[in-house]
Amino acid sequence: MVRAELLAVGEELLAPGRVETNSLFLTEKLSELGIPIVFRAIVGDDEELLAEAMRQALTRSELVLVTGGLGPTADDRTRDAACRALGRTASLDPEILDGLKRRFARRGIEMPDVNRRQAMVLEGSEALRNSVGSAPGLFVDAGEGRAMVLLPGPPRELRPMFEMEVKPRLAPYAGADVYRVLKLWVAGMPESAVEQTISDAYRDLRNPETTILAGPGQVEIRLTARGASPEDAERLNEDLASVFRARLGSAIFTERETPLEEVVGRLLLDRGLRLSVAESLTGGLIAHRVTEVPGASRYFDEGFVTYSNESKSRLLGVPSELFESVGAVSEEVALAMAAGARDRAGSDLAVAATGIAGPSGGSETKPVGLVYLGLATPERVEARRHLFPGTRSYVKAWTGQVALDWVRLALLDREPS
Amino acid sequence: MVRAELLAVGEELLAPGRVETNSLFLTEKLSELGIPIVFRAIVGDDEELLAEAMRQALTRSELVLVTGGLGPTADDRTRDAACRALGRTASLDPEILDGLKRRFARRGIEMPDVNRRQAMVLEGSEALRNSVGSAPGLFVDAGEGRAMVLLPGPPRELRPMFEMEVKPRLAPYAGADVYRVLKLWVAGMPESAVEQTISDAYRDLRNPETTILAGPGQVEIRLTARGASPEDAERLNEDLASVFRARLGSAIFTERETPLEEVVGRLLLDRGLRLSVAESLTGGLIAHRVTEVPGASRYFDEGFVTYSNESKSRLLGVPSELFESVGAVSEEVALAMAAGARDRAGSDLAVAATGIAGPSGGSETKPVGLVYLGLATPERVEARRHLFPGTRSYVKAWTGQVALDWVRLALLDREPS
Repeated sequence: MVRAELLAVGEELLAPGRVETNSLFLTEKLSELGIPIVFRAIVGDDEELLAEAMRQALTRSELVLVTGGLGPTADDRTRDAACRALGRTASLDPEILDGLKRRFARRGIEMPDVNRRQAMVLEGSEALRNSVGSAPGLFVDAGEGRAMVLLPGPPRELRPMFEMEVKPRLAPYAGADVYRVLKLWVAGMPESAVEQTISDAYRDLRNPETTILAGPGQVEIRLTARGASPEDAERLNEDLASVFRARLGSAIFTERETPLEEVVGRLLLDRGLRLSVAESLTGGLIAHRVTEVPGASRYFDEGFVTYSNESKSRLLGVPSELFESVGAVSEEVALAMAAGARDRAGSDLAVAATGIAGPSGGSETKPVGLVYLGLATPERVEARRHLFPGTRSYVKAWTGQVALDWVRLALLDREPS
Repeated sequence: MVRAELLAVGEELLAPGRVETNSLFLTEKLSELGIPIVFRAIVGDDEELLAEAMRQALTRSELVLVTGGLGPTADDRTRDAACRALGRTASLDPEILDGLKRRFARRGIEMPDVNRRQAMVLEGSEALRNSVGSAPGLFVDAGEGRAMVLLPGPPRELRPMFEMEVKPRLAPYAGADVYRVLKLWVAGMPESAVEQTISDAYRDLRNPETTILAGPGQVEIRLTARGASPEDAERLNEDLASVFRARLGSAIFTERETPLEEVVGRLLLDRGLRLSVAESLTGGLIAHRVTEVPGASRYFDEGFVTYSNESKSRLLGVPSELFESVGAVSEEVALAMAAGARDRAGSDLAVAATGIAGPSGGSETKPVGLVYLGLATPERVEARRHLFPGTRSYVKAWTGQVALDWVRLALLDREPS
């Protein structure tokens, strides 16, 4: 099987506080082509070090993707390093030079001389069109079935170039087999519960491979199948996914990476229903997520961030005696908040959250992480008790996720697990 | 100067969707010691490949930090790879073995045999105490003034081990010079405006080095000074920082990495004032951020997420004729929202946001990114017009940041720039 390596070039990528993201994108894309990555590195703008890293990569792997260092300035060393690593020369490509000059002319300026470097093409390489920026990429045949691909560093240039120019050229490296990825997203279940539900079905299976990634209130299940044809690989994924679907049922909220708030939004639109929210511990997070979706105004009018007891009573009509008798973090208050929000906003549905995000404010009977959610629909008002793990932010995130998921399940006429 | 490299070990770190975070932590920590990182790589669990990567790293750099692969299972290859890379053997350390056995005994279980591997110590190395997990680290003298440090992969084990066990041992590598980092955080100014204000003061300066990192509505200015003593380095940072402070003034909201919402919270507490918020396009984001701070209930009672016009009128008393005459995204509505929120919530201050987050809903006169903020204080009600760049999420993030910063400046009796 072909193996690949990634080299990200740039002094700034080694500086504190910087996350290098191109390798995350390329890892994803190569995995979809079934090409495994065996080594990933970041190097500065040192030409010798970079050339040596390229040489070593080419001894280990058939495919080396280098990102960054193709700009016009003196610290852009990738082209020269590639020449040095492969013992090749580069020559000026008149067509690329023309393109660069025209690009500058369109902006009404003459091309600075330094940019001539960007028209230099290595022996035995093909230039890769840059639809967004000035630096073309290079696909270098490194001999003995190996290739080195030089790509620009800015993600908005690299991404379309990969899709349009690199991917088609990787077909011979992707091998006879075809790979397909299928992803299932589950909300509202801890990773361990998802594992327990499905692990016996995939644990000993190598094709598809199953990996599980967890975030607060969300678990991604990723299947990667290998087959002789796309249909073969897809069928293998489907076979296993259908087992997962049967076991997880409506806990799966998307198979297309649609964020939960967008799934909820589409269901509301489909049914012609409107939502409102009443938030105590989440402090606006749920409404913020609902309104991250373009067009949310078609199903969302308003949210109440009722942090104090007095605010819960005034804005939502929560009877103030409840704070004395059962406390603000209680089933009764969650019910009253949901019913009040639905009533005052005149919405079809309302979801409410009250709880203890921490780090302080917990007690033996009401620990940090205790959350009551309320849901009001035209048919009923209900509350559910939860205990979420982690820090203040994490408890808020879990609460938001489970609250949105409850709305989703209610719209599907399902019960939360 | 000593150079360092980081090697993160683990097949799972090369999988799609995974971000490797230990190297970010170590980059930060080494930079504070003035040790630059020249190469950073991720390798799988292949012992030969890993040993070769270690050998190459030791030819380039004096200090090689390896994270992960110290667990008890067969795919934890770091110890064996280090033996192979250095041509050394490892032997069982009875003291570590005892510690491991006691650790298991405390949990009421007998130590599984596989864990014996974790008590293996390389020739010429010192064990590093793990205060959290079972795997001890190793500080290996690699000869010729070089060292290789093997650290456990889980961040919660690695971080205290670095602070307590590794840092003191790095003193000889940190060289005679001492490094100090000073960070200034600016809100509400685009990166280019910050650059323009200060670039001539630092551009040609190599000590301290200045780097600038930008996020939506926030810019981090980081100074790294080198000196013969901590006092020397701190004085160099202070000299340059005082220039930056003079030019940026109150645009700097923290020098201690305190989030803006926490800075605002402390000012409110200090002054004994309470805040409320009225949000249209941000949809709850501002309230969410305010309530990310522990103890926010001491200065925050409520927020109004008024997404529809009807909601702005009903909850905040915005005169409905304004929507006809000037539209919801207008100075007048921002003023009315802020005044209404302050009045209805009975708070001392209120901040309001109305605007067009996009991607649709823009027009020639009111483009996507147009935002009016309103601020109501006991003395006055004001509105300001902004035009923010980027996607829907980005416009929301910018709006939230600038709104919170306006509250901060008002509490300091300052005007936004």
